[in-house]
Amino acid sequence: MENATLYTNVRPAGGELTSVLVRDGRILARGIPARGIPAVGNPARDNPAMVNPAQGNPAQGNPALSASSLEGALVVDGGGALMLPGLIDAHAHLDKTMYGMPWYRNEVGPRLIDKIDNERAEKKRLGIDPYRQSARQIVMSIADGTSHIRSHVDVDTDIGLAAIEGVMRAREQYRDQIDVELVAFPQSGLLIRPGTLELMDEALRMGAEVVGGLDPAGMDRDPKGHLDAIFGLADKHGKPIDIHLHEAGELGAFSMQMTIDRVLALGMQGKVTLSHSFCLGMPDTQAVQALTEGLLKAGVHIMTTGSASRPVPHVASLRAAGVTICTGNDGMRDTWGPYGKPDMLERTMLVGLRNNFRRDDELALALDVATYGNARVMKLADYGLAPGCHADFVLVQAETVAEAIVSRPVRKLVVKRGRVVARDGRALVEAP
Amino acid sequence: MENATLYTNVRPAGGELTSVLVRDGRILARGIPARGIPAVGNPARDNPAMVNPAQGNPAQGNPALSASSLEGALVVDGGGALMLPGLIDAHAHLDKTMYGMPWYRNEVGPRLIDKIDNERAEKKRLGIDPYRQSARQIVMSIADGTSHIRSHVDVDTDIGLAAIEGVMRAREQYRDQIDVELVAFPQSGLLIRPGTLELMDEALRMGAEVVGGLDPAGMDRDPKGHLDAIFGLADKHGKPIDIHLHEAGELGAFSMQMTIDRVLALGMQGKVTLSHSFCLGMPDTQAVQALTEGLLKAGVHIMTTGSASRPVPHVASLRAAGVTICTGNDGMRDTWGPYGKPDMLERTMLVGLRNNFRRDDELALALDVATYGNARVMKLADYGLAPGCHADFVLVQAETVAEAIVSRPVRKLVVKRGRVVARDGRALVEAP
Repeated sequence: MENATLYTNVRPAGGELTSVLVRDGRILARGIPARGIPAVGNPARDNPAMVNPAQGNPAQGNPALSASSLEGALVVDGGGALMLPGLIDAHAHLDKTMYGMPWYRNEVGPRLIDKIDNERAEKKRLGIDPYRQSARQIVMSIADGTSHIRSHVDVDTDIGLAAIEGVMRAREQYRDQIDVELVAFPQSGLLIRPGTLELMDEALRMGAEVVGGLDPAGMDRDPKGHLDAIFGLADKHGKPIDIHLHEAGELGAFSMQMTIDRVLALGMQGKVTLSHSFCLGMPDTQAVQALTEGLLKAGVHIMTTGSASRPVPHVASLRAAGVTICTGNDGMRDTWGPYGKPDMLERTMLVGLRNNFRRDDELALALDVATYGNARVMKLADYGLAPGCHADFVLVQAETVAEAIVSRPVRKLVVKRGRVVARDGRALVEAP
Repeated sequence: MENATLYTNVRPAGGELTSVLVRDGRILARGIPARGIPAVGNPARDNPAMVNPAQGNPAQGNPALSASSLEGALVVDGGGALMLPGLIDAHAHLDKTMYGMPWYRNEVGPRLIDKIDNERAEKKRLGIDPYRQSARQIVMSIADGTSHIRSHVDVDTDIGLAAIEGVMRAREQYRDQIDVELVAFPQSGLLIRPGTLELMDEALRMGAEVVGGLDPAGMDRDPKGHLDAIFGLADKHGKPIDIHLHEAGELGAFSMQMTIDRVLALGMQGKVTLSHSFCLGMPDTQAVQALTEGLLKAGVHIMTTGSASRPVPHVASLRAAGVTICTGNDGMRDTWGPYGKPDMLERTMLVGLRNNFRRDDELALALDVATYGNARVMKLADYGLAPGCHADFVLVQAETVAEAIVSRPVRKLVVKRGRVVARDGRALVEAP
């Protein structure tokens, strides 16, 4: 059993100043006075300040806590910082970022297939190493306060399982700092590239947690065949599904409805996510309403990045209807485009901007998507800032949640399972 | 005549490493070797490093420069930084930011009029001082490398000319660090608030450089009357026009066409800007094409912020047609919404994201809008990085222009009319 740490002068979710007691990787209690701690086990650190609390009665105000819970506890003064639960990136592509490599001059064509073909060629030409690059993005994510990542990882007949292996290696290396979940992702198509299905099967056997899919109509040109294949893999391995659905308008609506129907027929409620789902941003609001009811009935989750240049799902109305929404940074600084940082507060801002969220309650909703929404989709147990939850949290200097989102301040402290993993915007681990 | 400064190891617009010689507030020459400078007049500074150049032949490689041009010159080592021309914010609202004030909890309603009425009330309740607040935004803008601002400034029957006076006071205070141009802006309506026209007239007499307008149909409910009034003011004072045109779709197209017709009838070509112009993002591409031809014929400029939640003008196609586009940060951290920083590189990124610009040439176009496009609209003489131009520039650590936009690095050095005004992200002047 580790010594406890008491974070004083913090404002969980922007609320009143309080303290948060952490031990054995979990939040043990809130509202313990620092003077209640009998002793300090570790030396003071500069930032954030660790102070010698005065002696006092440990049980005061929290009778359930025994004095032994607090024995040898550290006190960390949060300095009035906002405490947010660990940020979650529920849609990443760790294997393809080019962060840390020379600038990639992007001259790619306008179609989706241009980007897919270009990427497969450039991966070889430039040596985009899945382990090294995912490790780099992971370390940047830790510095920005991300506690969990769901990463789609390319599986195709060129790269085989090398990207899966690379990301798994990076995940293992940083397992004490961040949780990473893998989606086996047929980026270059599933049925149109014979051999991919077998590789997907192997990736799932190796431990990828989620079955990926991609544009059943637009990419594989065989929506029934594509959905049969990935639902078959999901059934075989007992794993959930996350499909990239870029198809817009009525075509996307068709693929979405086919997915909903399969979920209901197979009893996969709550286990399927449709990423992007641009069709939900189409002008035909009656069609969107019908799809929304189907999503709700089938418990299908929607991932949106708040793309500025595409029609997008309307976060507020989908949430009001009861649909679970999640968000993520998607690809960043890769052959698809140069934008993006691993900062989920910046992503939350972009989702807010795209959805015309201006009020504080609207921005709080956007952050709820990027935290609790993502946790629901990834089925993370004991997530949050309540006693009993895993101690995954971030401290930032901001007056309100909305200010944290729009200002995106340097992360003062990032804690994962009770341990400090980043300080003042820098991870305490290094990238290759 | 001031001593010259030679900025060595800089890459203007991301090109090859070179040096840039500055004297008397202008760029005198490029490509002068540091060893060509006979002496150094000022002591070395830490950042960026100023070094003692070796003795040598000043005229080498630049026979037109006399040795006396370089006498007593400083050498500033740019360390390989990218040199960009001074960034321009061609659409600001300096008088209404709440930066530096306690967090404003936004609970405003969804309509334009909700925001306008809310702001007028909150200005009084919260004491949003136009001088203090514009000074704060100006100082932040200087730190972010902005050399010129066009600010719309509210004129209405509540505030009268106080905002104009406040922004003019701040402009005077920071006149050596930044150029600020004022648009007299009837934010609460022109004809629907009797007395506003007279206040606008007085604001222009006081020195506001541009006549503002707002939604001729949507706000004043009298497009003919509104346009008659502001074109009348423009004629009387011999000043250009910049109209906020939020009206979308066919209504906006109607007001835009009325504006084009007036410009042609009155010979005001090149003197009118239509800000926002959401109607140019409407689905009817044939109507947009007809408007585009009208804009081109009338030399009407378009300002876009790349709003993520509204239909927007298509930057690439308008530019390809020959229309001049400019951009700006618009309101930031005000009663309208909490978003925004004075950083024009961030604005350029948002314009790029909204327009789905991914290629390096597309991002270069976005930055061209935020620099040379803005300069064309504001009719800035001698703007740029060529010899003879005013020495207004920014140094940033980035490999390419695209990287500067998507990474938005801290501004290493900001120079205005030859003088350093900000360093490492901090202005050398202070805000009240």
